[in-house]
Amino acid sequence: MKYSQTFIPTLREVPGDAVIASHRLMFRAGMIRKLSNGLYAYLPLGLRSFRKVEKIVREEMDAIGSLEIKPTVVVPGELWKESGRWASMGEALLRVKNRLGADFVVSPTAEEAFTGIVRDELSSYRQLPLSLYQINTKYRDEIRPRYGVMRGREFIMKDAYSFHTNEESLDEHYQAQGRAYRQIFKRCGLTVIPVKADSGAMGGSGSEEFMVESEIGDNTLLLCKKCGYAANVEKAGCKPDFSPRPSAELAAAAAANTPPAEKIDTPKVKTIEELCTFLNTDAKSFIKTLIYKAVNVELDLSTAPGCKNLAKNTTAPGAPESYSEAFFAVAIRGDLDVNEVKLAAVVKASEVSLAAEADVIRITNTPVGFAGPVGLGSVPLIIDHTVTGMNDAVTGALEQDKHYKHAAYGRDFTAWLIADVRTVKTGDLCPLCGGELYEKKGNELGHIFKLGTKYSLSMKVSYLDENGKSHIPLMGSYGIGLDRTLASIIEEHHDEQGIIWPVSVAPYHVIIIPIKYQGDVQVACDKLAGELEASGVEVLLDDRDERAGVKFNDADLLGIPWRIVVGDKNLAGGMVEIKRRNEKEGRLLSPASAVTEISGKVNGSKII
Amino acid sequence: MKYSQTFIPTLREVPGDAVIASHRLMFRAGMIRKLSNGLYAYLPLGLRSFRKVEKIVREEMDAIGSLEIKPTVVVPGELWKESGRWASMGEALLRVKNRLGADFVVSPTAEEAFTGIVRDELSSYRQLPLSLYQINTKYRDEIRPRYGVMRGREFIMKDAYSFHTNEESLDEHYQAQGRAYRQIFKRCGLTVIPVKADSGAMGGSGSEEFMVESEIGDNTLLLCKKCGYAANVEKAGCKPDFSPRPSAELAAAAAANTPPAEKIDTPKVKTIEELCTFLNTDAKSFIKTLIYKAVNVELDLSTAPGCKNLAKNTTAPGAPESYSEAFFAVAIRGDLDVNEVKLAAVVKASEVSLAAEADVIRITNTPVGFAGPVGLGSVPLIIDHTVTGMNDAVTGALEQDKHYKHAAYGRDFTAWLIADVRTVKTGDLCPLCGGELYEKKGNELGHIFKLGTKYSLSMKVSYLDENGKSHIPLMGSYGIGLDRTLASIIEEHHDEQGIIWPVSVAPYHVIIIPIKYQGDVQVACDKLAGELEASGVEVLLDDRDERAGVKFNDADLLGIPWRIVVGDKNLAGGMVEIKRRNEKEGRLLSPASAVTEISGKVNGSKII
Repeated sequence: MKYSQTFIPTLREVPGDAVIASHRLMFRAGMIRKLSNGLYAYLPLGLRSFRKVEKIVREEMDAIGSLEIKPTVVVPGELWKESGRWASMGEALLRVKNRLGADFVVSPTAEEAFTGIVRDELSSYRQLPLSLYQINTKYRDEIRPRYGVMRGREFIMKDAYSFHTNEESLDEHYQAQGRAYRQIFKRCGLTVIPVKADSGAMGGSGSEEFMVESEIGDNTLLLCKKCGYAANVEKAGCKPDFSPRPSAELAAAAAANTPPAEKIDTPKVKTIEELCTFLNTDAKSFIKTLIYKAVNVELDLSTAPGCKNLAKNTTAPGAPESYSEAFFAVAIRGDLDVNEVKLAAVVKASEVSLAAEADVIRITNTPVGFAGPVGLGSVPLIIDHTVTGMNDAVTGALEQDKHYKHAAYGRDFTAWLIADVRTVKTGDLCPLCGGELYEKKGNELGHIFKLGTKYSLSMKVSYLDENGKSHIPLMGSYGIGLDRTLASIIEEHHDEQGIIWPVSVAPYHVIIIPIKYQGDVQVACDKLAGELEASGVEVLLDDRDERAGVKFNDADLLGIPWRIVVGDKNLAGGMVEIKRRNEKEGRLLSPASAVTEISGKVNGSKII
Repeated sequence: MKYSQTFIPTLREVPGDAVIASHRLMFRAGMIRKLSNGLYAYLPLGLRSFRKVEKIVREEMDAIGSLEIKPTVVVPGELWKESGRWASMGEALLRVKNRLGADFVVSPTAEEAFTGIVRDELSSYRQLPLSLYQINTKYRDEIRPRYGVMRGREFIMKDAYSFHTNEESLDEHYQAQGRAYRQIFKRCGLTVIPVKADSGAMGGSGSEEFMVESEIGDNTLLLCKKCGYAANVEKAGCKPDFSPRPSAELAAAAAANTPPAEKIDTPKVKTIEELCTFLNTDAKSFIKTLIYKAVNVELDLSTAPGCKNLAKNTTAPGAPESYSEAFFAVAIRGDLDVNEVKLAAVVKASEVSLAAEADVIRITNTPVGFAGPVGLGSVPLIIDHTVTGMNDAVTGALEQDKHYKHAAYGRDFTAWLIADVRTVKTGDLCPLCGGELYEKKGNELGHIFKLGTKYSLSMKVSYLDENGKSHIPLMGSYGIGLDRTLASIIEEHHDEQGIIWPVSVAPYHVIIIPIKYQGDVQVACDKLAGELEASGVEVLLDDRDERAGVKFNDADLLGIPWRIVVGDKNLAGGMVEIKRRNEKEGRLLSPASAVTEISGKVNGSKII
């Protein structure tokens, strides 16, 4: 392809919102242009690399027997109402009414569409397992899209969904997807951190995220240098740094030497820090108690304190019951933070958030700042594991300007539920090996997930087994964001001058730069381009009437893996200059040797 | 690919709404499933053929130097407001508000997006010509989607847009697109009728539609067997079957022997038929006068009767002015119909429709049924060419139960505008050669169109010429509906048993059917499949445990071009049975010969 015949509007300047390297470079290299906030058009150069990522993803999906289909992008709202996500998904779901007033969704993901399609076709166990995927447009109405295609509103996702008769079959395909993902990222030249989304402490592995390290990542990862443990903070566990008590009785016994709980005056002392100063002790001696509001709670609260009259959501028959909202008190050691994602998982809620002040006052019967577990009966009390080890603690007394000293779990209060809800952080101990954990920011590129019967149940999918008995299939879902993958490749492969493409996803393999595209040089360039193309190498021939310096700078910016410079002087000696994008100096080679070397490398390796 | 490892849910029955062959067969062959009215998912088999059509389109676009880009599917409403189509497009445009209240459009076409992208990059004439295309999701909120993917709401369109400094350059690319389209349809095995959308009588060729004949086509084509003239009824012209008068004076002179216009009583006579009976004459002697309402009229009406106070739309500076609505009287010979698309083109309106009864009464000052050109001064009068030849006609007298006899154009009335607005029909004469025209129903698969400056003007695109002077580029647009193309291939290539794929777009080239997939037959099938695949042939191996009859029926239904049957008996003689889908009888060949024959044909031809 001649440069003059394509459309690569390179730029020296970048828009103000381009704060990360991939955004800046994709913009400067003429790969993308902004249509609107979070909406980007791929120009020819960008689309070439994008299609290579797409091809790699498709090949690896086909290799594990997943079958490509193409549902629509606009899908009936009815399907989303069946699954319950029409109500639960919030504003990121772009809802549309058509001219007849019917509800539609611009797909942000496609569990509903795939489940709907399979439901209508599935009758026998003989049709399972079945894995289907699409590579298709998705839209999420992000409130604050950023970083170019890294976090856009519209993007292309590969999403696969699988259907199984049993756990073993689901696990087998889940593992195959995981291997395919590793292979995809490897072929893209990406260093990913596969993160088991379950904490090691909890066991199991129903979910794995594929992260790339990124300073602008919206995930915090906890990593162990010693054993390789990696977990999202939303799920990460840690070795106990306290004495856990297996039961309330044992805890009470451990408090035998603790003086009785004593209510003390703590005037105008509200924060943990103020209390530490006031009582001259440290945060680890406090039990912090927070009131949370949870929505769409599936946990059974029929016997929980204060929950008798909770309103239930209407649900499909057979689907789990849920409460539209419920409040919980959560007690945790004073130096720790409650992780809301973990808490939401514990109470099986779609979302949890700190309760509003008015709710806190109503529930604790005291102003904010004096909540505590002792005597609290208005809502279910969840305590973090750490609290089970506390037999001489300070905590709020449910009374203005009052705290308890010497409060002991098991003796002065018990819990409705004990769970791990702490936010693990740098310095905590690896749940697997006890090594020290450290934090990194990460961006999620892919996610594989065992859905179980969540969708097959709510959307009433079933099949008959060999005895004619009806069952509900297990499902898995497996997604990769292609735009984000492409941007992440650039994040990992660039320098000050521009992109440094891995060969597998480079828009072209070689850029040929004539010092001046005329006479013998022109003839030599055309011949070289023809021979390279004939041997399967993709060539960009910079035939522009520009200064050599401009062409060199653009070549570095575009990041094409090989550069061949053709000039009068070298050509007179039968030579051209060949240079890898990541090398400082070029080498002189005959054109024939250049063709042999490059075509050998392009055809011989999948990544390089 | 083994049949058991893919997902081809074939069916004997079809849904009630599947009234055309392609819809029935795509459904029965498990190519598509319905998600909702007008929304179809492609299953694996359907997607394979779809991707082949896509590949053909992409190759032919690349071959003429059009560059692929990928804008988003959801685009800012702002762009559509700039072009004016936010207002003019009507309800087929799916409008969405995002969570922040901003307007978006789910693209039904992309003139706006492409023009917006190019506008921001274009500075110099040196960047032109430029042709860009996408193959991407489109959505049109059809009020009555029908016929499966033939007329769905969501579909994939290849749409290209080109930008030029002059007419010659635009025409050159327009012609190249036209050639590419012919090549695309040829490679897909389709017989298309290229229809110049301009009438031959008017000259010029700024638009060409590529039609396939179809009983359910939504276009009426006028075709001349003699010279090959083909036109959409919306544009078709014909040789005059009357004596046209070059001027009102000549027309008046021709009426020298006509008695003076005479007002007669025509009690309760309203329709042309009733008048014919009442006056014992035929419809060709009448002047039919209809009142039309037109919206977004760009024709200059500043000096037209009754138009002084028309409200104007607000438009971008430099863009043509338009009136939000205007009324016209249209007079035509009584045996003919006014073609509203032609009329809309004449008055440069986005839409015209018959005026409401109240408007007719207001404008003609009489009940509906008595409109006529004599004495009508409240709105501009447009007369069809046919009326210029009428010098002794009957027509409404603008008075209840009254008509004129002996009305003559030029003497009793003149026109504000004379134009060709008649609907041409079977039996009319070819405008090029005078041969007899006949009608066919057609479906439009593609359309190439010279847009001129419509979008570059309203959206303010400009470039500087070699002298630094600013100009507005000319544009062209070029679309093909891929889903409809695929369905049309099936319409043209099927029989009672199923589809008969052209090799170029067949989901697989060969289906291998073992009578029983076991023992020697299994070994032979696997070997055959392996050898065919190694030579570039796509194989579906029907390894299902089904009766041979079921497999044969499914093979016919799926329409795979070659069928190879492997059975114990023939295999013992070293033979397999090979049959083309469109042949009645198979032939016995050695497996090696079968491989040679099929791979030779698959690799040797683009269509077959």
